[in-house]
Amino acid sequence: MISDQTHMRRCLTLAKTAIGKTAPNPLVGSVIVQGDQIVGQGFHPQAGQSHAEIFALWEAGDRAKGATLYVNLEPCNHQGRTPPCTEAIIKAGISKVVVGMVDPNPLVAGKGISRLRQAGIEVKVGVEEKACQRLNEAFCFRIQHRRPFGIFKYAMTLDGKIATAQGHSSWVTSRAARHWVHQLRSQCQAVIIGGNTVRRDNPLLTTHGLSDQNPWRVVLSRTLDLPLEAQLWHQEIAKTLVVTTKNCDHNMLSHLEKLGIETLILDPLTPLAVMTELYQRDCLQVLWECGGILAAEAIAMGTVQKVHAFLAPKIIGGGMAPTPVGELGFQRMTEALNLTNLHCQAIGPDWLFTGYLAANADDGNGQSNI
Amino acid sequence: MISDQTHMRRCLTLAKTAIGKTAPNPLVGSVIVQGDQIVGQGFHPQAGQSHAEIFALWEAGDRAKGATLYVNLEPCNHQGRTPPCTEAIIKAGISKVVVGMVDPNPLVAGKGISRLRQAGIEVKVGVEEKACQRLNEAFCFRIQHRRPFGIFKYAMTLDGKIATAQGHSSWVTSRAARHWVHQLRSQCQAVIIGGNTVRRDNPLLTTHGLSDQNPWRVVLSRTLDLPLEAQLWHQEIAKTLVVTTKNCDHNMLSHLEKLGIETLILDPLTPLAVMTELYQRDCLQVLWECGGILAAEAIAMGTVQKVHAFLAPKIIGGGMAPTPVGELGFQRMTEALNLTNLHCQAIGPDWLFTGYLAANADDGNGQSNI
Repeated sequence: MISDQTHMRRCLTLAKTAIGKTAPNPLVGSVIVQGDQIVGQGFHPQAGQSHAEIFALWEAGDRAKGATLYVNLEPCNHQGRTPPCTEAIIKAGISKVVVGMVDPNPLVAGKGISRLRQAGIEVKVGVEEKACQRLNEAFCFRIQHRRPFGIFKYAMTLDGKIATAQGHSSWVTSRAARHWVHQLRSQCQAVIIGGNTVRRDNPLLTTHGLSDQNPWRVVLSRTLDLPLEAQLWHQEIAKTLVVTTKNCDHNMLSHLEKLGIETLILDPLTPLAVMTELYQRDCLQVLWECGGILAAEAIAMGTVQKVHAFLAPKIIGGGMAPTPVGELGFQRMTEALNLTNLHCQAIGPDWLFTGYLAANADDGNGQSNI
Repeated sequence: MISDQTHMRRCLTLAKTAIGKTAPNPLVGSVIVQGDQIVGQGFHPQAGQSHAEIFALWEAGDRAKGATLYVNLEPCNHQGRTPPCTEAIIKAGISKVVVGMVDPNPLVAGKGISRLRQAGIEVKVGVEEKACQRLNEAFCFRIQHRRPFGIFKYAMTLDGKIATAQGHSSWVTSRAARHWVHQLRSQCQAVIIGGNTVRRDNPLLTTHGLSDQNPWRVVLSRTLDLPLEAQLWHQEIAKTLVVTTKNCDHNMLSHLEKLGIETLILDPLTPLAVMTELYQRDCLQVLWECGGILAAEAIAMGTVQKVHAFLAPKIIGGGMAPTPVGELGFQRMTEALNLTNLHCQAIGPDWLFTGYLAANADDGNGQSNI
């Protein structure tokens, strides 16, 4: 007998097929099993299309009768852009449903499961639950906190610098590490930088062809002290959104608008206000690829949940060379923000640390945590 | 038949028994084997005492006749504080000698092996050679470059800071990491810091009881702008050496001398001049535990060969917070110094990177490499 865990891991594998494409929806995979035989499987390909369970039921057809359905997220019980999955499951004659995790939306949680049980279907909940939660960490955070899941990525030397004292930063890490970042971008709906990064690095911020979709390239600049010409001002490959304030340089604002770039005035312009805007634009996961000053603001406002820190095997020196995170106002080392679940992996010659800012992952008020 | 490699690894294990105690001599272990039976073994316990081969021959006695002797470093062929080992090996009737690596001293290299071969003994060289070289990396460097092997150790947060902007640094890393550093100190003959570290951290710089011997605690201060009272001024547990210049504060100089602290005037006071002095004092391995400014000087002068970088799972922030390495004069990221053989290990909740500054490990002139 193949275990429930094995079938659930298959659901997760199916779900991952659509990674980066489902926003603001979750990643969901489903498998229908008769005995040990898989008779149907599916995944949710993108928002507006059918849910994973529906694809699996279609494939199973009559063989769904008396079968067990596995799905990594509780089936929906409400009419959204598509009809409720619970009704389709009941109608197909499924006799048992195994659910990885309940719906994280407090308003919905458990209702799908209740509906199935009311209909006489046996429901088992919590199989491979941690892996299910991890896969949809961005979805869970977004739905509970009503803003996108924030990821802060940076690359520094072994002595903690992201550039030389003169601001030169190409390249800190290897081609392999940069490729990894392009993949990460393909899983995000927006990438945020500040004006400094535009002026100093003139970045492209695309997936470099790894995905059909590129994230929004978002520039935060209170003054619009930005170059007239920049890679980001070309909109053929990817869209750019420039966020500024009322007191910006209006000549520059006109210039950008003439280039066809979307601009947005937010007063005050804060990381939280930007994240709220991106939430309304259906962003699920947002990548901060900014310098230390903006990164510190983003962290202080609770808009960074996850950190990817690359460490390159080199020493550049420089007492004035920029570091990944600017002023957080801490005077004593004991005040430092701890990272949880930190793990380390080699990416080419570089090392990648991934962890979570514990304080920022769990607060629900969107205020600064520090 | 037990392999040569196995016997050689036993020599290395025996040699390590005396780690931190043999300076300026190498770590050497020896095993004498008849068939598969070990009939004698020994290691060099400290300078002035007998060499490893002699202890092994004593234990073997008559059983050394026709036996094979393993030793990780080429036996000496000269009269030092003890008689040449080659003569003792020949006299004991050893028929084969297996040597891990030749003596790194260019004036000696190969003479011990030649002498044994002249006497009709079969000699095999280069078994587990890399491990043998690594064990005695400090000895090899010292004898070839006529200065101690320099190790730079630092501890930084995941955002590259060694303290807060206010200079507060206790503690960046965990107790487990600090214990590891105490062990490292027990393997060094001197620990160097600058005046800033005395003023800010008031460190103790001992092995915290892990070893009978503590390294020299060396303070470099051009002006002697140092506190009247400091943990380092107490000499009961460990000796302190304060190195300064002619233009120092002579009141402070008298104060330190009255406290029984050794002082030394070096003009100019450079990392290289200090390392030359420590070489003359028989130091094999010297640990730089200084802040970024002095660390940059030490690196620039080629007095750092190995780097131990601790990374703590926390973010402290601070645009003005100090980082591990100060100004090296590099303007472009491509000028960075590369680390070779970098590896990473978990020490409690922290991560330790160990690598080599390639340029500094191989130069022979003692000049700056950058």
